[in-house]
Amino acid sequence: MDAYRILQNIRKTKPLVHHITNWVTIYDCAAITRSFGALPVMAHAKEEAAEMAAISSSLVLNIGTLTPEIIDAMVLAGKSANRKGIPIVLDAVGVGATPYRTKEAERLVSDLKIAVIKGNAGEIGTLAGVDSEVRGVESVRVSAAPIDIARKYSKESGAVVVITGKQDVVAWKGGVCLVNNGHAMMAGVVGTGCMAASAIGAFAAVEADCSKAASCALACYGIAGELAAKKSAGPMGFKQNLIDEAAALDEQKIKSMARVSEA
Amino acid sequence: MDAYRILQNIRKTKPLVHHITNWVTIYDCAAITRSFGALPVMAHAKEEAAEMAAISSSLVLNIGTLTPEIIDAMVLAGKSANRKGIPIVLDAVGVGATPYRTKEAERLVSDLKIAVIKGNAGEIGTLAGVDSEVRGVESVRVSAAPIDIARKYSKESGAVVVITGKQDVVAWKGGVCLVNNGHAMMAGVVGTGCMAASAIGAFAAVEADCSKAASCALACYGIAGELAAKKSAGPMGFKQNLIDEAAALDEQKIKSMARVSEA
Amino acid sequence: MDAYRILQNIRKTKPLVHHITNWVTIYDCAAITRSFGALPVMAHAKEEAAEMAAISSSLVLNIGTLTPEIIDAMVLAGKSANRKGIPIVLDAVGVGATPYRTKEAERLVSDLKIAVIKGNAGEIGTLAGVDSEVRGVESVRVSAAPIDIARKYSKESGAVVVITGKQDVVAWKGGVCLVNNGHAMMAGVVGTGCMAASAIGAFAAVEADCSKAASCALACYGIAGELAAKKSAGPMGFKQNLIDEAAALDEQKIKSMARVSEA
Repeated sequence: MDAYRILQNIRKTKPLVHHITNWVTIYDCAAITRSFGALPVMAHAKEEAAEMAAISSSLVLNIGTLTPEIIDAMVLAGKSANRKGIPIVLDAVGVGATPYRTKEAERLVSDLKIAVIKGNAGEIGTLAGVDSEVRGVESVRVSAAPIDIARKYSKESGAVVVITGKQDVVAWKGGVCLVNNGHAMMAGVVGTGCMAASAIGAFAAVEADCSKAASCALACYGIAGELAAKKSAGPMGFKQNLIDEAAALDEQKIKSMARVSEA
Repeated sequence: MDAYRILQNIRKTKPLVHHITNWVTIYDCAAITRSFGALPVMAHAKEEAAEMAAISSSLVLNIGTLTPEIIDAMVLAGKSANRKGIPIVLDAVGVGATPYRTKEAERLVSDLKIAVIKGNAGEIGTLAGVDSEVRGVESVRVSAAPIDIARKYSKESGAVVVITGKQDVVAWKGGVCLVNNGHAMMAGVVGTGCMAASAIGAFAAVEADCSKAASCALACYGIAGELAAKKSAGPMGFKQNLIDEAAALDEQKIKSMARVSEA
Repeated sequence: MDAYRILQNIRKTKPLVHHITNWVTIYDCAAITRSFGALPVMAHAKEEAAEMAAISSSLVLNIGTLTPEIIDAMVLAGKSANRKGIPIVLDAVGVGATPYRTKEAERLVSDLKIAVIKGNAGEIGTLAGVDSEVRGVESVRVSAAPIDIARKYSKESGAVVVITGKQDVVAWKGGVCLVNNGHAMMAGVVGTGCMAASAIGAFAAVEADCSKAASCALACYGIAGELAAKKSAGPMGFKQNLIDEAAALDEQKIKSMARVSEA
């Protein structure tokens, strides 16, 4: 596990992580990015999206409240990032819930070179062409195992594919790894999925191996969740503690708690 | 009181509650919906608003930061909901503060069949044609009693009308009921009004009698507020505890604390 | 120090503070405004921006997630505020990070009479024509002392100029003052800069002397930060406590803790 080494690099170099994201969890995305030690910036105007992406170290695209204007800005920012070799993380929020969402996500995947595509089982299942059902932003049914969906879609897309859930799956052309950190409380809080994508964005900003960045980010984020759960009575207290614990991670916690294995 | 029975139904069936809402409290709307056990989704693009509404169990429209594009999306989502018989909750935020807000709220009420229209005394007073003053999103003066305003506007609109305040009033063609739950701290926190509308949306998603859904939602929400106030030193701590207490409601709390009466 | 007197006036008169602000920290801007006792309203539609500004007691413009539509609304609201003599606070978020942001901020300063222009050293340095570097919304390098930048730009713009940082600088045509309140934790939390502008907006809503309004607001806000830091383990807990402490300020705390001096 290089998680602690990558985290130290984030804290030392304070990379800029550009987000074009949704209006529900935009604050949480910024907050978790900041807690891991990176600098978040949110800029969705077509007039500056490309320039902001070009000075950033990674770009997080989250389609939770997409509109045509937002998608246009994502394409501009994404092409700018691609020209500079800046990694893009796509959070496929709600893909499968409406045809519009699915179509626009597919357009982003086809128009841009995405480094990491992240979603829950239903969202990634939809992109992978596996029979799935997504209710709003929740995965309610998939007809295959997450590990198989991730492997299949990783081959098709060429990207590192992340499926979050009770167990997180990270699949890339070289293999699959499983992250068994996290806590059941994460499923009951609005924004934990979006924050996972921002965490990956922060790690990918300083680590060129995106499968390693993703698995290390998910391990650290999950550990913060486990530590937060110990002191939280409800979902909002948990969210606050989760972001606070992300800021307080250290080598000892990460080494003793990380549960990452190859599949 | 059927409040606990309805709450159990929400928790069991996890209905999707579609919101087109404002950018200030959008997270809180999602969080309280989730705490009551429903699944929130926020989707305001004209390209998917109708489809997202059609797969939802209720639709919450909140005009807190309205624009012409948002109103257009609300009309599309609302007509879709009407076609499917999905209940619509309208939160008339800031009506009376500017002529634009008043006009657009009236247009929604006239173009759509709204199940529940909710606001503070000044907002509903403005819609009811009662002399009122609204400063931003606060009611500062009304020239009639909330109960009379609610009754009048319920007759005119055909909707269940909710006026929130120290005492919440729910009026419909069959009667009026008063909800005496809640706590003074709720008035000092940004977002408590918006969350009340989302609570009603969650209850109306599983309860066809919208006056019952509204009064039970307000009782449960108010009880969560009373429990939160006991452990909170300031407004933000209170808001966190309010959402957490909503997730922790049980039969004993609801039965012993609910204060709902017919007027 | 008139800080407590001004705070009492805010609490007594509950002035309306109109914001056109960014989507990341919009809730926090509203919350801190409310905690100081003022009424926040956020309204960015061109159809009502001018009218909402005209009934407000101050106007806060924050370009954190600017678009051409948002800037147009700001100009409409700003001209309306100028006609009525309502003070405008501009938070120059991210100026210097992209040419678009810099150009639009300069346009606001040139088209409107701004009472208070606020930013970090890099943002104000950029506006003042001092060699500066801004990474996203963080100041990473300036080639002059904040006090000199503030003085220079205050002369050029005619506005009260505020540079926030470890020490806050308030410069106006009659002098410069330094506010030494605040805590290091403020730098690690997303939104503390934006909330400082809202705090100034709340104080300027009731105090005609905008340099006094700004320094008193920053002192009170900083004191709340110092009190919050004593009880906070991480950034999110700190933010919650900061807003709660702002609501709990009293004469004794302000008199004993304020550290404002003329330069």
